[in-house]
Amino acid sequence: MSTPSILILPGDGIGPEVMAEVRKIIDWYGAKRDLGFDVSEDLVGGAAYDKHGVPLADETMEKAQQVDAVLLGAVGGPKYDDLDFSVKPERGLLRLRKEMDLFSNLRPAQCFDALADFSSLKKDVVAGLDIMIVRELTSGIYFGEPRGIIEEGNERVGINTQRYTESEIARVARSAFELARRRGNKVCSMEKANVMESGILWRDVVTEVHQAEYSDVELSHMYADAGAMQLCRWPKQFDVIVTDNLFGDLLSDAAAMLTGSLGMLPSASLGAPMANGRPKALYEPVHGSAPDIAGEGKANPIACILSFAMALRYSFDQGAEADRLEEAVEKVLADGVRTADLLGEEGVDPVSTSQMGDAVIAAL
Amino acid sequence: MSTPSILILPGDGIGPEVMAEVRKIIDWYGAKRDLGFDVSEDLVGGAAYDKHGVPLADETMEKAQQVDAVLLGAVGGPKYDDLDFSVKPERGLLRLRKEMDLFSNLRPAQCFDALADFSSLKKDVVAGLDIMIVRELTSGIYFGEPRGIIEEGNERVGINTQRYTESEIARVARSAFELARRRGNKVCSMEKANVMESGILWRDVVTEVHQAEYSDVELSHMYADAGAMQLCRWPKQFDVIVTDNLFGDLLSDAAAMLTGSLGMLPSASLGAPMANGRPKALYEPVHGSAPDIAGEGKANPIACILSFAMALRYSFDQGAEADRLEEAVEKVLADGVRTADLLGEEGVDPVSTSQMGDAVIAAL
Ligand SMILES: CC(C)[C@H](C(=O)O)[C@@H](O)C(=O)O
Ligand SMILES: CC(C)[C@H](C(=O)O)[C@@H](O)C(=O)O
Repeated sequence: MSTPSILILPGDGIGPEVMAEVRKIIDWYGAKRDLGFDVSEDLVGGAAYDKHGVPLADETMEKAQQVDAVLLGAVGGPKYDDLDFSVKPERGLLRLRKEMDLFSNLRPAQCFDALADFSSLKKDVVAGLDIMIVRELTSGIYFGEPRGIIEEGNERVGINTQRYTESEIARVARSAFELARRRGNKVCSMEKANVMESGILWRDVVTEVHQAEYSDVELSHMYADAGAMQLCRWPKQFDVIVTDNLFGDLLSDAAAMLTGSLGMLPSASLGAPMANGRPKALYEPVHGSAPDIAGEGKANPIACILSFAMALRYSFDQGAEADRLEEAVEKVLADGVRTADLLGEEGVDPVSTSQMGDAVIAAL
Repeated sequence: MSTPSILILPGDGIGPEVMAEVRKIIDWYGAKRDLGFDVSEDLVGGAAYDKHGVPLADETMEKAQQVDAVLLGAVGGPKYDDLDFSVKPERGLLRLRKEMDLFSNLRPAQCFDALADFSSLKKDVVAGLDIMIVRELTSGIYFGEPRGIIEEGNERVGINTQRYTESEIARVARSAFELARRRGNKVCSMEKANVMESGILWRDVVTEVHQAEYSDVELSHMYADAGAMQLCRWPKQFDVIVTDNLFGDLLSDAAAMLTGSLGMLPSASLGAPMANGRPKALYEPVHGSAPDIAGEGKANPIACILSFAMALRYSFDQGAEADRLEEAVEKVLADGVRTADLLGEEGVDPVSTSQMGDAVIAAL
């Protein structure tokens, strides 16, 4: 097999800083573990807009389609707030998701032992928490037509459309069931079937896929508002949660915050297998571009580093190496190494973004 | 002015039990405070379906339109899970909201001092919490057309439409600003303007109303996913939150759960002023019908009682009497009276639903 290829899109804000640490890790794997990658880099988001007038150039899109995995930093910032909707930084990210058809967004909400005190939740509620939210990422109200702001009578009307086809629901359900089999074997599906017909179809299709193909997995259903409640009350009741694009956006962010480990959480967005058997894939941290601290060397690179660990696992079939990297991160945390976002304990001085990257490499 | 009228719709599950306690309170106000109400009662939800084959009979709808305030218990239960969407218990509630045009849903998320330990959040994060979520209740994806499940190609497609007009947004924004003026004078508006055009219109209209009419109130905007995070991290940063129907559903439930006082939280749904100057109004607890404990005398009637306190304040201009009732509830809690849902402390025996109602009356 030819050298696996990675396209790095650092993006905006702290994106470039945290991605620089990931590059160190990638280089380490090439030098020490004989795991070479063919790495290229390009622009996305505001950075791409500044150069090309669009948040993702067509040629970048083409490159993304060809590589084995895309690593993305973060997009957006106040500088771009007044841009037209069609060229906002976020559209670059949404275009990647849509055109690569990355329908299954895996968002682990995991509480790192060393950080349980950072959660706003009581320690016993979050310690040891490890759930996986599978969010549908290429359909629903994010992409449905018709959409826009129209004039009607004498006023403006804002319109978006939630639209889910049976096959869109079935494929993301399958990916949730597959994951559950390798974890706690439990899936909870969330929608608002009591209010929305698209939620009724969601519930029906998830149930059908379960009965036909995954009846060994335990399946439950919950309304999304009750789901939000239960995540706040006792998140450990869940193993895998599968939900739509919009509910997944809110629920996974709430879950990430609850862990107290927000600066630590990676994500993987996976599509269908390519000719070489690898899924189309994009990996990115859950946190945003944090423009307020950009360029100061304060950002925590761990979420981005763990996103690369997910790439090792899901794109490159290197589960053992992914474990190694995750263990290195846990060791660094257990040793008390902290970036500024993780402070709180007395008498600990924060390390810089690049010192954190170095510490992970040392632990590897 | 003629005797103010109230229509009681106990609904399903624990609805009838908790509403029985509210009736005691209403009677107390008639006997002791010379505040008489003309009270009638009718069916909604599964109870209405059982009798009429629909979750809200037309004549009940007409009565609701005529009274000064509707008090509703709760709707739904497993018995009705397999009913067709169009006659599910929830449709009765949604019909009331829509036809009475109750566009402004006030959901206080308040942490009762005596109950701060019940929260899954750390005590300092929730103690003293008192925020108000104003949820748009008659539009958005709950009601937008087209909707339904259609056949397309060889598969089913589920469709719902988010639709907001300028005036729908403006009126709920006004009600949030009005409330803020009587509280902490701060409004945070939440949408997904980075992804949805209806969110862009939402943000624009809220900003316009603010500039034209309420520039004395502090206004901020947040994406709804970030809002979910911030509610979980440090809810005390908020005073009034205004958001759409669907986001409001999730965010207000999460906020309610975070307070640790879920069985305690009331809500008011208000519409335009009627001929007598009173707003169309429906009051209901935030909790659901809890079919698992229905009929056992275990339910906590406080959320329903506090919903009546909101009626005193918003429908009957009896702010002082509302305060009195709220203080009575706080006294009962401070005295250690607990229904089964509030247990946790050692050595406390739970009181029944009706004992809790009696305790509140004694405290009045
Ligand atoms: C940046 C934004 C478009 C995006 C989303 O809404 O999906 C983000 O919130 C996320 O969750 O990845
Ligand atoms: C019962 C249901 C239709 C309702 C809603 O979704 O609005 C409930 O969750 C609520 O928040 O009042």
